Amino acid sequence: MAAMWQCQGVNRLAAPAGGVRQGSLRELNLALVLGRIAAADRPPSRAALAAQTGLTRATVSAVVEDLVAGRLVTEAEPTPRAGAGRPARGLVLAGDGPAGLGLEINVDYLAACVVDLSGEVRHHTVHRADLRPVSPADALGRLARLAAHARADAAAQGLTLAGAALGVPGLVDDTGGVRLAPNLSWRDVPVPELLAAYPPLTETVEGVPALVVDNEANLAALSELHAGAGPGSFLHLSGEVGIGAGIVLDGALFRGVRGWSGEIGHIPVRPDGPPCRCGGRGCLERYAGQEAILATAGLAGADMPADTAAMRLAQLAEAGEPAARHALHEAGTAIGITVSSVINLLDLDTVVLGGGYAPLAPWIRPPVLAEIERRVLTAAWSPVTVRPATLGATAAAVGAAGSVVRRIIARPAGWLARL
Amino acid sequence: MAAMWQCQGVNRLAAPAGGVRQGSLRELNLALVLGRIAAADRPPSRAALAAQTGLTRATVSAVVEDLVAGRLVTEAEPTPRAGAGRPARGLVLAGDGPAGLGLEINVDYLAACVVDLSGEVRHHTVHRADLRPVSPADALGRLARLAAHARADAAAQGLTLAGAALGVPGLVDDTGGVRLAPNLSWRDVPVPELLAAYPPLTETVEGVPALVVDNEANLAALSELHAGAGPGSFLHLSGEVGIGAGIVLDGALFRGVRGWSGEIGHIPVRPDGPPCRCGGRGCLERYAGQEAILATAGLAGADMPADTAAMRLAQLAEAGEPAARHALHEAGTAIGITVSSVINLLDLDTVVLGGGYAPLAPWIRPPVLAEIERRVLTAAWSPVTVRPATLGATAAAVGAAGSVVRRIIARPAGWLARL
Repeated sequence: MAAMWQCQGVNRLAAPAGGVRQGSLRELNLALVLGRIAAADRPPSRAALAAQTGLTRATVSAVVEDLVAGRLVTEAEPTPRAGAGRPARGLVLAGDGPAGLGLEINVDYLAACVVDLSGEVRHHTVHRADLRPVSPADALGRLARLAAHARADAAAQGLTLAGAALGVPGLVDDTGGVRLAPNLSWRDVPVPELLAAYPPLTETVEGVPALVVDNEANLAALSELHAGAGPGSFLHLSGEVGIGAGIVLDGALFRGVRGWSGEIGHIPVRPDGPPCRCGGRGCLERYAGQEAILATAGLAGADMPADTAAMRLAQLAEAGEPAARHALHEAGTAIGITVSSVINLLDLDTVVLGGGYAPLAPWIRPPVLAEIERRVLTAAWSPVTVRPATLGATAAAVGAAGSVVRRIIARPAGWLARL
Repeated sequence: MAAMWQCQGVNRLAAPAGGVRQGSLRELNLALVLGRIAAADRPPSRAALAAQTGLTRATVSAVVEDLVAGRLVTEAEPTPRAGAGRPARGLVLAGDGPAGLGLEINVDYLAACVVDLSGEVRHHTVHRADLRPVSPADALGRLARLAAHARADAAAQGLTLAGAALGVPGLVDDTGGVRLAPNLSWRDVPVPELLAAYPPLTETVEGVPALVVDNEANLAALSELHAGAGPGSFLHLSGEVGIGAGIVLDGALFRGVRGWSGEIGHIPVRPDGPPCRCGGRGCLERYAGQEAILATAGLAGADMPADTAAMRLAQLAEAGEPAARHALHEAGTAIGITVSSVINLLDLDTVVLGGGYAPLAPWIRPPVLAEIERRVLTAAWSPVTVRPATLGATAAAVGAAGSVVRRIIARPAGWLARL
């Protein structure tokens, strides 16, 4: 690893004197050192960073000075060492510098959250409202107010929002517009255009887009992937009013040929079953979507937001209430049939029950496993793990915010250039 | 590209004098030049190869001399040029050097074929027999006799078999053994061990395994991929007694976490439908496998091999025979339902109807398209191409032989070392 750029002053950060080549070496070194600090299990010292990266200690010190000045890195409290000598001061990601704004629009709620560089959630608001009767412009206007509130709260905590990401329950095109969100009845909604009037979502940091729009199930799957415990390949299900999936293969989200993968909610469970909003029949959503579960549990029309509904169902199932238990068994069976198809096709070994399914996993998981056992060709000798998601209902918004933070860590020079 | 190895004599091929570093440079140059010749639209001259590879003309000449001496490359007939000067002699892959042996075991036939370096099929035998009542050892013994016959025919044509690949209708483990082939009732069959007694399948060329065992649907999909016309990502269906799929993503076969992807025949179409050999219910094979189609067409018990059955069905459908038309419409509908699930999940834009489905595509394709239109969320604005495979029923064996040939082209030094 070549490492030649040296810097001893903060005042040169905004405009490196050495031209493109030095500039890009500096950028590489900043990203290299910050990446090591982010990935470390315990706060590394400058000496440890030099050993790990192959940079000289002088270079590491200079790079760290820049990162500290830019509020990307801070020194951890020194921990006493076993051996002799004074304790080495370790470096950690800063909790008072840039942060990511994560937003989510779903069928029955809006969410905004702020995640700092260290991954901590510093702000989280969920606004419950049935958005089906609301126009896209109005829904996005409400979301922008939530975003402004999140931004003010972040500022009060000394944080600066470096970019935003928004999860939507539908298919997103290259421009960030929503081509189709069946459960919201959205078609061709130009999301970035409708949000352009709201400054918190249009200010930019070099290298960090002001606003990235993505499918909420994709963001939730990424969130699970970066929660650390996740394996390299898995299917992540997001159970909301609609059902989405994120397919992670070898540590990366698989987006499909045109970016529209993961529409598991519209895989037919019973092809001649009841009609679905998508135009098909017998889709998974008709058996395991929130409305279907509530209806089977005798709670139709209760009009609860997803997490309340999941909690209520969990309480009833816990208490042994037969209709709730039956509803969850039926949903789990439909999920199991669909997931068996996915495993037969893709040979995945892990299924994560996310969104509203996470707190319901104790009742959904057994019928899912039973269907896998019955239908997956390799199940007899190659077991499949089915487990609840780490984050559950907040995964999409937290995942969105986390995606912003990861962009800063991957390319810190953009953030430093704005100071 | 560094290119320093020089050679002017064939006698040094077997043991390069220059040690590891020179040996590996030589190997790189051989592979580089041979790869260009294989990929060229028209036979390239030595000068064109030098320009394309960045090697000196002297190096290219020396490398070509080795490739010609090793019967990997030959000079094409000179074609008259428009400009002045004598015509340049172009180089093509040789048709009289090494060749690949491709083998297939399916439920109702065995196949062996030989493909030369230029991709031409030089030998092809299909032995029809219901292999369900036959023991694995006996079936493999018959296959070995077919292989011996293919080898003798290849030798009579001046070809040398450099390796073999075998397609099986089941799940193959790391050792080349068949874990499970439901339609053959095979379980834990140690294929390489059972074939070890047959010399044509155990002789080795350095860098080319004597025998590679793979799922036949995977080999058929690879065959379609290398037929050239194929796009970067597609789902390839192999319709035989069983139904397999090969999933090609960005030009590479997707094998899944443990290598067992593509079991599309056991995706449930109607989860409460008739029981399947796999232990599940209502699997695709029960609606669109060869036996199901023949039964619906009123031809149950006719006991025809897959290609005969497909041809007979095509004749009847062509003649407007209602039962045959109905059977193909039902099969196409079941395939369409399943394929819609795959597209909703993976966002693929091309489906290839292979194996016995290829000649039946005129009747299967319309109901497949109708289901896609009805069930795929993105179908309205993002069309899916459904087309017959280029090779059809011979794809797996030809694909197996082609995989051997591609290994030689990727690493010609192994072949040259044995001369």
